[in-house]
Amino acid sequence: MAELVVLYKTPKDAAAFDKHYAETHIPLAKKLPGLKKYAVSKGPVATPGGPSPFHLVAILSFDSMGDIQKAFGTPEGKAAAADVAKFATGGVEMQMFDTKDV
Amino acid sequence: MAELVVLYKTPKDAAAFDKHYAETHIPLAKKLPGLKKYAVSKGPVATPGGPSPFHLVAILSFDSMGDIQKAFGTPEGKAAAADVAKFATGGVEMQMFDTKDV
Repeated sequence: MAELVVLYKTPKDAAAFDKHYAETHIPLAKKLPGLKKYAVSKGPVATPGGPSPFHLVAILSFDSMGDIQKAFGTPEGKAAAADVAKFATGGVEMQMFDTKDV
Repeated sequence: MAELVVLYKTPKDAAAFDKHYAETHIPLAKKLPGLKKYAVSKGPVATPGGPSPFHLVAILSFDSMGDIQKAFGTPEGKAAAADVAKFATGGVEMQMFDTKDV
């Protein structure tokens, strides 16, 4: 498998972020070709030391890094990426990698 | 479900990191009570813009945030946490959260 981990820093307006994410971004991201599973943090994100700088984390699963890269190149991928700028007012970090179960 | 995402920044000596992670840390972390699934990045971590500051990402799955917090309090959790300082020479970030599939 391969994972795309998307970490959204705390936005200026959390309620507006949550509304846009649920109503607009999830439907757009679910259209990504090759997407196998899409999990989103529910409730606060925490660290072992206390509160996190991140408001929401999404983990999108694909079969391979190649499939993630292909998805970014599709019209659906470009639409989802363009949408991020509309609500991720605190910034966003994305990490992607192939995985192995251990 | 709940996820513990562990992001290891690029260490001073990647080969030593990889050896310690595979031979010592994985066996310790696999003993965490309540651990349901443990996936580790294979090969380079990337971002949409290019190379990532992270050398390795681990995603540890549990049934709930409560189970993650309980695991940190056990002897096995304390042993795994203490081990991190021995090889994570570039630093480490941990994020934990309950999830929902969307």
